[in-house]
Amino acid sequence: MSDYRNDLAVVVLSGGVGGARLARGLDAVCTDLTVVVNVGDDDVIYGLFVSPDLDTVVYTLAGIEGSHGWGLADDSFDVMGHLGGFGLDNQFQIGDRDLATNLFRTARLREGAALSSITAAVASSMSVGPRVLPATDHRVPTRVRSGTTWMPFQEYFVLRGGTDVVDELRYEGADQAEAAPGVVEAIDRADIVVIAPSNPPLSVWPILAIPGIREAVQRSSRVMAVSPLFAGRALKGPADRVMASLGLPAGNQGVADAYQGLVTDLVVDVGDADEPVETEAAIHPLDTRIADRMAASRFARALLELP
Amino acid sequence: MSDYRNDLAVVVLSGGVGGARLARGLDAVCTDLTVVVNVGDDDVIYGLFVSPDLDTVVYTLAGIEGSHGWGLADDSFDVMGHLGGFGLDNQFQIGDRDLATNLFRTARLREGAALSSITAAVASSMSVGPRVLPATDHRVPTRVRSGTTWMPFQEYFVLRGGTDVVDELRYEGADQAEAAPGVVEAIDRADIVVIAPSNPPLSVWPILAIPGIREAVQRSSRVMAVSPLFAGRALKGPADRVMASLGLPAGNQGVADAYQGLVTDLVVDVGDADEPVETEAAIHPLDTRIADRMAASRFARALLELP
Repeated sequence: MSDYRNDLAVVVLSGGVGGARLARGLDAVCTDLTVVVNVGDDDVIYGLFVSPDLDTVVYTLAGIEGSHGWGLADDSFDVMGHLGGFGLDNQFQIGDRDLATNLFRTARLREGAALSSITAAVASSMSVGPRVLPATDHRVPTRVRSGTTWMPFQEYFVLRGGTDVVDELRYEGADQAEAAPGVVEAIDRADIVVIAPSNPPLSVWPILAIPGIREAVQRSSRVMAVSPLFAGRALKGPADRVMASLGLPAGNQGVADAYQGLVTDLVVDVGDADEPVETEAAIHPLDTRIADRMAASRFARALLELP
Repeated sequence: MSDYRNDLAVVVLSGGVGGARLARGLDAVCTDLTVVVNVGDDDVIYGLFVSPDLDTVVYTLAGIEGSHGWGLADDSFDVMGHLGGFGLDNQFQIGDRDLATNLFRTARLREGAALSSITAAVASSMSVGPRVLPATDHRVPTRVRSGTTWMPFQEYFVLRGGTDVVDELRYEGADQAEAAPGVVEAIDRADIVVIAPSNPPLSVWPILAIPGIREAVQRSSRVMAVSPLFAGRALKGPADRVMASLGLPAGNQGVADAYQGLVTDLVVDVGDADEPVETEAAIHPLDTRIADRMAASRFARALLELP
């Protein structure tokens, strides 16, 4: 008999794709799920307020996510095509339907609505079940220093392809921000807090930087971090390189150190079961390849069944 | 023999549709044309900086204007359709290609570019010949008072359909604004300044409210106003009602009074040739129905041939 219980209250701290896939897996096997999402990547592009991680999580939970880690499946790019005609750099591609989400968010923000209530409206219009909360309703733009140059996150990540060496990160405004309504309450109420297999410095630390969130996580009796690494490398994105250039050890030791004092459990990929990691957290090897919807729900179930 | 000369330097002061059609007519018959366009209708919609009169003029000169007085011909409305799915009021409809213009403008404005240089880039990308200049690079939003309520122009015009009684207008910031580069120079250099058959209080007065523009027009030796009225009524839009509620006399007397001391010539429709108008300007009846491209160029030629 499995000791899996689907009435557990679960909170996921999530960046983009990895967290979205984990959330989708958990959504398939538990009924009380809250996803707290990084908003450090948010930016203003073409005058539109983009919130890439929130959209990735909502689209993925709605089952309509794009196949390349952003945007929507089968979206058209008519507006971007026309935009290119003006000679504007349109490297930051936004599909037509995705554009509507961004226009909606921008219009409602300008009307004074909070990002959390706008996100709830988007999620609801797409029949998303779990609660999806931005970490904060405040603006906390992550800035990236490479050498002597500070740049906005989207410049580093999208326009420059995440190839620069990251020497320092700044979560601007985070110390003045407040957690969005419901975030701290959800963490306090959770039976399990799961830190998604997202980029620790770029996706999870900006969430933990919001006053009250780290403290709430520290109060939790069960906090499981899922490593984003496979044989020391991220499947996608610059997590391993960023962790290294910020001085974290290679491999899952770096993940353990990134969440030191915060997690009770560290879930690593089965392929890395023999990797030595010094940590007070319990280490659990599981198959952490969750790109596929079925694999994600199997993983989620295995996660909730961990002793 | 005609005394029409196509080497005349002509400046048109223009609102939206009427001015755009006149400019298209003039573009067909003269080579040195500058269109100075009202920007009092500009607003921020869905976070995008919309500039309806500038776009109407550019699209019309490019021959790709929409048939209802706004937007582009054969545009699709995919993004607006998706936007409606969020339950947002999407009454202000922007087509997909039109959206690209607005995204380009918004993106470039945010980068610090001037509206005039952005407009030049849009016009150039659409192979528009005449110079199209915003009256000013500053923000001078027209505000409309109806009874005790002040509202932005687009709320009055688009969202409420221009049906409210207009008791007062305010061209906010106009007294602190400067004419866009080239505007005063073009007027000073012009052989003829033409005030388009646009709404005098809503489209032309906001241009004249920019310091330096009215003075330049007053210095001009030949200033022709084309009446937007036919038997006292505007073909489209609320010009006659707005003029009346602002205390101007009915019919072309109101147009003459709106431009008192400013124009040397008033062009009225042939159908109104017998309407008595007290003015120091010379009155010329012409066929002022210029919706059709051929009719507009015939009219433009007749205008330039006036004694």
